[in-house]
Amino acid sequence: MSDYKVKEECGIFGAFNDPAAARHTYYGLHALQHRGQESSGIVSSTFDEQMQQPVMPSYKDFGLVLDVFDDPAIFETQLLGNAAIGHNRYSTSGASTNRSNIQPFVVHHRNGNLGLAHNGNLSNARKLRDRFRDKGTLFQTTSDSELILHLTSQSDEETHFEQIRDALSQIEGAYSLVLLTDDHLIAVRDANGFRPLALGRLGDPDQEGGAAYFVASETCAFDMIGAEYIRDIEPGEILVIDREGCANGGDFDSYQIPSKHGVSQCVFEYVYFSRPDSKIFGEMVDKVRRRIGEELAREAPVPEVSEDEKTPIVIPVPDSANTSTLGYAMECQKMGLRCRFELGLIRNHYVGRTFIAPGQDRREMKVRCKFNTVEGLLRDRTVIVMDDSIVRGTTARYLVNMLRESGAKSVHFRVSSPRVISPCFYGMDFPNKSELLANQFEDADEIGEWLGVDSLAYLSVDGLMKAVHGANKQDHGYCNACFTANYPVPVDMSTTKEENEWQV
Amino acid sequence: MSDYKVKEECGIFGAFNDPAAARHTYYGLHALQHRGQESSGIVSSTFDEQMQQPVMPSYKDFGLVLDVFDDPAIFETQLLGNAAIGHNRYSTSGASTNRSNIQPFVVHHRNGNLGLAHNGNLSNARKLRDRFRDKGTLFQTTSDSELILHLTSQSDEETHFEQIRDALSQIEGAYSLVLLTDDHLIAVRDANGFRPLALGRLGDPDQEGGAAYFVASETCAFDMIGAEYIRDIEPGEILVIDREGCANGGDFDSYQIPSKHGVSQCVFEYVYFSRPDSKIFGEMVDKVRRRIGEELAREAPVPEVSEDEKTPIVIPVPDSANTSTLGYAMECQKMGLRCRFELGLIRNHYVGRTFIAPGQDRREMKVRCKFNTVEGLLRDRTVIVMDDSIVRGTTARYLVNMLRESGAKSVHFRVSSPRVISPCFYGMDFPNKSELLANQFEDADEIGEWLGVDSLAYLSVDGLMKAVHGANKQDHGYCNACFTANYPVPVDMSTTKEENEWQV
Amino acid sequence: MSDYKVKEECGIFGAFNDPAAARHTYYGLHALQHRGQESSGIVSSTFDEQMQQPVMPSYKDFGLVLDVFDDPAIFETQLLGNAAIGHNRYSTSGASTNRSNIQPFVVHHRNGNLGLAHNGNLSNARKLRDRFRDKGTLFQTTSDSELILHLTSQSDEETHFEQIRDALSQIEGAYSLVLLTDDHLIAVRDANGFRPLALGRLGDPDQEGGAAYFVASETCAFDMIGAEYIRDIEPGEILVIDREGCANGGDFDSYQIPSKHGVSQCVFEYVYFSRPDSKIFGEMVDKVRRRIGEELAREAPVPEVSEDEKTPIVIPVPDSANTSTLGYAMECQKMGLRCRFELGLIRNHYVGRTFIAPGQDRREMKVRCKFNTVEGLLRDRTVIVMDDSIVRGTTARYLVNMLRESGAKSVHFRVSSPRVISPCFYGMDFPNKSELLANQFEDADEIGEWLGVDSLAYLSVDGLMKAVHGANKQDHGYCNACFTANYPVPVDMSTTKEENEWQV
Amino acid sequence: MSDYKVKEECGIFGAFNDPAAARHTYYGLHALQHRGQESSGIVSSTFDEQMQQPVMPSYKDFGLVLDVFDDPAIFETQLLGNAAIGHNRYSTSGASTNRSNIQPFVVHHRNGNLGLAHNGNLSNARKLRDRFRDKGTLFQTTSDSELILHLTSQSDEETHFEQIRDALSQIEGAYSLVLLTDDHLIAVRDANGFRPLALGRLGDPDQEGGAAYFVASETCAFDMIGAEYIRDIEPGEILVIDREGCANGGDFDSYQIPSKHGVSQCVFEYVYFSRPDSKIFGEMVDKVRRRIGEELAREAPVPEVSEDEKTPIVIPVPDSANTSTLGYAMECQKMGLRCRFELGLIRNHYVGRTFIAPGQDRREMKVRCKFNTVEGLLRDRTVIVMDDSIVRGTTARYLVNMLRESGAKSVHFRVSSPRVISPCFYGMDFPNKSELLANQFEDADEIGEWLGVDSLAYLSVDGLMKAVHGANKQDHGYCNACFTANYPVPVDMSTTKEENEWQV
Repeated sequence: MSDYKVKEECGIFGAFNDPAAARHTYYGLHALQHRGQESSGIVSSTFDEQMQQPVMPSYKDFGLVLDVFDDPAIFETQLLGNAAIGHNRYSTSGASTNRSNIQPFVVHHRNGNLGLAHNGNLSNARKLRDRFRDKGTLFQTTSDSELILHLTSQSDEETHFEQIRDALSQIEGAYSLVLLTDDHLIAVRDANGFRPLALGRLGDPDQEGGAAYFVASETCAFDMIGAEYIRDIEPGEILVIDREGCANGGDFDSYQIPSKHGVSQCVFEYVYFSRPDSKIFGEMVDKVRRRIGEELAREAPVPEVSEDEKTPIVIPVPDSANTSTLGYAMECQKMGLRCRFELGLIRNHYVGRTFIAPGQDRREMKVRCKFNTVEGLLRDRTVIVMDDSIVRGTTARYLVNMLRESGAKSVHFRVSSPRVISPCFYGMDFPNKSELLANQFEDADEIGEWLGVDSLAYLSVDGLMKAVHGANKQDHGYCNACFTANYPVPVDMSTTKEENEWQV
Repeated sequence: MSDYKVKEECGIFGAFNDPAAARHTYYGLHALQHRGQESSGIVSSTFDEQMQQPVMPSYKDFGLVLDVFDDPAIFETQLLGNAAIGHNRYSTSGASTNRSNIQPFVVHHRNGNLGLAHNGNLSNARKLRDRFRDKGTLFQTTSDSELILHLTSQSDEETHFEQIRDALSQIEGAYSLVLLTDDHLIAVRDANGFRPLALGRLGDPDQEGGAAYFVASETCAFDMIGAEYIRDIEPGEILVIDREGCANGGDFDSYQIPSKHGVSQCVFEYVYFSRPDSKIFGEMVDKVRRRIGEELAREAPVPEVSEDEKTPIVIPVPDSANTSTLGYAMECQKMGLRCRFELGLIRNHYVGRTFIAPGQDRREMKVRCKFNTVEGLLRDRTVIVMDDSIVRGTTARYLVNMLRESGAKSVHFRVSSPRVISPCFYGMDFPNKSELLANQFEDADEIGEWLGVDSLAYLSVDGLMKAVHGANKQDHGYCNACFTANYPVPVDMSTTKEENEWQV
Repeated sequence: MSDYKVKEECGIFGAFNDPAAARHTYYGLHALQHRGQESSGIVSSTFDEQMQQPVMPSYKDFGLVLDVFDDPAIFETQLLGNAAIGHNRYSTSGASTNRSNIQPFVVHHRNGNLGLAHNGNLSNARKLRDRFRDKGTLFQTTSDSELILHLTSQSDEETHFEQIRDALSQIEGAYSLVLLTDDHLIAVRDANGFRPLALGRLGDPDQEGGAAYFVASETCAFDMIGAEYIRDIEPGEILVIDREGCANGGDFDSYQIPSKHGVSQCVFEYVYFSRPDSKIFGEMVDKVRRRIGEELAREAPVPEVSEDEKTPIVIPVPDSANTSTLGYAMECQKMGLRCRFELGLIRNHYVGRTFIAPGQDRREMKVRCKFNTVEGLLRDRTVIVMDDSIVRGTTARYLVNMLRESGAKSVHFRVSSPRVISPCFYGMDFPNKSELLANQFEDADEIGEWLGVDSLAYLSVDGLMKAVHGANKQDHGYCNACFTANYPVPVDMSTTKEENEWQV
Repeated sequence: MSDYKVKEECGIFGAFNDPAAARHTYYGLHALQHRGQESSGIVSSTFDEQMQQPVMPSYKDFGLVLDVFDDPAIFETQLLGNAAIGHNRYSTSGASTNRSNIQPFVVHHRNGNLGLAHNGNLSNARKLRDRFRDKGTLFQTTSDSELILHLTSQSDEETHFEQIRDALSQIEGAYSLVLLTDDHLIAVRDANGFRPLALGRLGDPDQEGGAAYFVASETCAFDMIGAEYIRDIEPGEILVIDREGCANGGDFDSYQIPSKHGVSQCVFEYVYFSRPDSKIFGEMVDKVRRRIGEELAREAPVPEVSEDEKTPIVIPVPDSANTSTLGYAMECQKMGLRCRFELGLIRNHYVGRTFIAPGQDRREMKVRCKFNTVEGLLRDRTVIVMDDSIVRGTTARYLVNMLRESGAKSVHFRVSSPRVISPCFYGMDFPNKSELLANQFEDADEIGEWLGVDSLAYLSVDGLMKAVHGANKQDHGYCNACFTANYPVPVDMSTTKEENEWQV
């Protein structure tokens, strides 16, 4: 899973009733860096004494969190106030990207300031854009998230909060949101609950003014700042965090968006996207990922080898497959199969998002710039190499070739998820259907042949769902449309170019 | 007139039916650089073969024209097409300025692309903003010019051109505009004709496809590219330059905006703002400025000195007062008064817009960084120093002090315009009324005392108007509100902060 | 071993008789990125047709290899020729560093061009500098490496090569060098062999003109470009790679620097510095590191726990301790001890070299920015955490605290090297003796108490040396002065400021 | 004189016994900006309490003075101390220039720190370089000025000051220098006195510690900071400014370099290079330049025109010809000739050193970017246009063409200096002999034909020298080699490439 880009996946964070709101958002975003590396931004809320009105200063740029916020003065003189939201965005096209698209967005309208950070993809974006187009509304960004701002600003409702609710009632699809008003931090998860969103707390809830509260895409962001995980924002929940609720031990108003399609949380978050040290959808990712490895071991164990052969080694494609591979290897050992977990591929972490690869074989050189084999381990061994998923397959194929060059006796590929056969319309940027490796061949054997392996096995959909549910007795359902093409929310796959846009 | 900043004064340029449209716009903007040094931008119109639709590529940045467009590839690969518009913006606040405000603006809406470059200030901006605010329209910039785009995009008219006319019918105040659509270049001057705008041509009108046509704030932009001045865009005229008109020898459709308040062209353009080598409002600036000097000579000639004293010298504050001072000195000589034109102040042209002046006396050092005296000329002389205007007076006061330090026997200040007593609401950014030097003292004598001069004289309003009209028998009137407080168009001087804005 | 900076450790690379010399150097330096992240540079050798003389174009900057060389034109139009050398430099002081110090150095003197890349530390630098100072020679850098250039340029020998040999005969201490002349690539290792240096080859040695030859600090650089490891440059060897030798199957002239102090290769390269997928000093780092873990298991195994307790987990501080920890865990299992290898600390790889940590507890936040715990794994477990070394101990202490916060039942620290008690004068930048944690306490128990662990064990010096030697029957000795204070080459520890330097 | 680049011409400044030394140097350099626009630097001298030794912090960069020093912190935290020197360098080749060449240079050698700023060209540079090359000395820059540092550092003399004198005794050619040691500011002018250098003072000489003393290329730098001109540094003088001398009312030690070739000050400084508000070589530039104009009026007055023709106008190429043109016009009027001084060419001052001129006719567009004509003035007039000199002639030719296009009835060109026929080896960078316009034609008539003028006249050499001497009864001679090819100091015109250089 090292060879593709995720489009609308993002990391979001919010802090409220917190004297260090922007700073904590900075640290939280850093912990969520894996969810988006293209750009990063923070918006805070404070009262400007000179202008005598509430304002929302913002600071945003292309780059990693630690690089964007590389000047302490940003926190000391700009991002003031007790509330803040932040956003990391994933890379799509690199250099040519539009600066206006960097979130959080913030607007000032007649009912006050409004900040927005959005993770997900709206499925009725086209219809909404058409409606605005006919009214002559001009757009500043090419992001669906902007629709939420126009819906709010043009709402006929009276109060700011009712305008926001009015806007939310009109959008469909996948969205985890944090919204910042001059008085509230509002956390929202769509009724299907596609993307994760959790609530955390720091400080004593009984102290005067109450504790500080946080929302984050993943709980690893809470660990970073020493905050405590309270619970998930529920699918369809609009949680309104305000000063009164903070003072009352976290007793916040909560509204429910009517559910149309049931709950369908994204399994791909468990498979690859979330960090192993996070808890999402109520369970530690690490645990789910280990069970995934164990399931795969039962479905497609290490091959048996003759007594006189060296012990087969099970190696992960680092770092995303590390945990599931550990689970796989241990389960195989429990099953009495001779094998050993090893670190046979070394990842070079000094690789940024964009680099040139001069000379021929550019793709191969890009893979070599990221990974090297440990030849001493591999020579004359049966090697089971494991990755979390295969999308286009180009990286996998080069890795197999490198393993063979290093003297592996045989190479067996294990994938800790089913075949990716269909694009995602709820936030993951898989390529077109035709570019997906699994759609280019009849079966796993043919794919294996193309990859150049001695055997190839994917985890079954059943196996994956068993691992995901685990002991988890929640009624929540999951979305596995990328593996099954069963889309829980209907999607309009056509698009239109007739937008009303500012051009920059 | 070296000590203030002009806010909404700008230089605009347009090119149509011209294979070198963007390049000529670049050169034209350079010639208009004195009208705005903060930022510069060009938008062109071309047909994108790949997208099979008309597009408007743009390139904009903070900085001088020659610095913003410092890469030939901008013209060879980006700003393609046979039509283009450009804009120079004046500096207001320096570093903290908003990049979104850099013109030309360009939007894509359901009837096509629309580019806009605006010089002037709308007087009903507040009312229009209020109306949009109530509808929930979000603004991207803090510029009044943006209103024209929303008025067009939200118009109920059918065609793009009718939408633009609809928008123009709703704005009031000072505006010289160039608008670029996918098919036209539209030049507009408000009914009062506050700001100049001229039409030019390059090439043979009888050649196939016709000549190239240009519009520019001042005719010096035509000189730069070898184009010929045809005529002014008339006050209240909407001139629609299209391909058909070009092919027909420049026979363009022209519409008239109904006049409410008569014609009132800005005299300050003649006094200071325009370049001496331009023709505006039908007359060479150089000629008007010389007549201004001559009028002032008649009103306040050089003082007579005793026979045994050295010849008094008349020196301009370079460069803006050069021409009027030459006129003044010659007229005095004609009147038989002993005096000589000299260059007694040297201007250091290596001074950018922002520089630090470390140490104490920062203001004085800033003046010294710009000007030095030629001591040999000044020692023991009666010195008549002349500037085009005095706004705050700080620079003037330091200059007088420097002249005295250099040994001037006496210093007589002549100002080739009346006292600036009232702010401009049509495009010039004079400071608040209370900051205007003329409002802080009873009369010229008191001002002269504060400046430290032996005598001070301003040109009278009558003298100025006589010089401006000259032999010019046009019926056009002029606005001299900054000198008289007679505002030709009523202005709502209150402002509101309740806008609906994107924040960047 | 995450909490210190190495001063003169570097990665060096050279390519000869290779049409893609600079490109291969680029890839090789990327593979050696772990040896130095502050700056990177490449110098190539080519013949300038216009100037009709050999030239050495160079390209150098602060930053990672992939960032410094981010424009393909560097390779296509600048770094031309069939020979090149490159250098990565480690960070010492960050922002305030001197650009002139970026290697490779290149000078033009009367006998031709000379390029130099140096890994190590000269022990007689002071004496040499004194000598030059008295002659009035001015230095451009603050690097000892520059001495080699002056020694060459001021040598009385006739030929360029003899001048270089003359220079090498006068320096002492630790140096692995690649030198580029207009005709040769010269690889040198000091007589003690402190730093590694290997020879590689790409292409058929029998082809016309012969194969391309490479030298590199570690063999992982050869893997990167598909080159083959031939042998190490021997301690004290001067290997002269020229065109004739290439054409003759790699039959190069080799000279020997007289040995004064025997061979003493750096064990710390095995402990921490080199990559596990490299072969240095004749053995795979991965294998040595695994044996180190096994030795430690025998000396300080996992504690036994009661039957009803969960299985203890052995976790590495990622990534440098991964391999030794795997060896440790397996050996413990072989010894029948209940334990399991787990990934209980997650490393955030999005951390650059310098970042701000606003707020209080900056040091703690810096550790938290790099590592997070997997709470689900740790809760109520006996945890054995393993790092490759402890220098100052600050990171270790914060990590222990984080493990405890995550609910570890007990924390046992294992260090896969002995106590660091003495600074390195041959290239590693340990802090002052007094800052070394091991020198601040009486024994391991006291250190353990300060760290807050239930037990702490270091590998013994004997254990380390046993692991390092392994089955390796070479006679080469090793330097372990940082653990024992036995310095194989006498060092003058005083320093002087009286240099003759250019200041920049 | 707008169409060439001056190579080694520079502006230098020094401050001593001045608490605001670096700040005053900054202002002084700004006043001298016309002498060099490529780069700027300041070195100060202070005592570092932490290092307990004198240090010389420096700050240098490409760009104008006000741009290089754009951060007040440079003066508050870096360039501390009571002494400083500064340097502006003229542009030679633009982008490809070598950062190491930016002056002042500063080195640290065994006798202390030494800073150097140099204006001029050494005529025995080649011989000196050869000598150093044979010793193996490596050079950091490609500037002759560096030789002075090596001569000092490698001198056998005992004290720092004697080493400097020893160095100065070995150089020949044109040099005005300021040298900064830990204890002195040393001002030096070569025995011929080619380049100007003046001594100034600020503050009361009788105050405790004495006044602050300054040296500068031109006196306009003293005006800038309010300092008083004392006297010129004499040709061949080594003036040693130290604390004792300051305390004793400016009683400084002064040494004399033996004169070999008499005094030969550069007349071109008067013709073009110096500012009109400066005093150099003992006389105001403004006065000399006016006399130059008067001489030319007598030699080649305005042509007489018929009674019914409009008054002929005399216009300068701004700004360098302004003063001499004023003198010319007045003298013509005194002679009873009908004519008038006018400003018929407008200079656009928003032109930086490098800009692109897209499209064809790039040279013409570059001239048009700098100048425009005032058409109203020129139409149907006899025009006398005057420039200070003609070097290549390309600009002049375009200007003549523009004047004609604007309707001038006839164009008469006057040049206020003789024909430039020979290159300068003492600091001015005229092009090769063959590129000089005057060498491409037989006589002025032919040149005039090529320029397209009705008449062309240069000032005679005699006329120039008469104007330069004026009432100045000093015995000093002048160098006019560029007009006469009489070189006062023999020059070795061959060059060598065999240098010993660092490459950057």
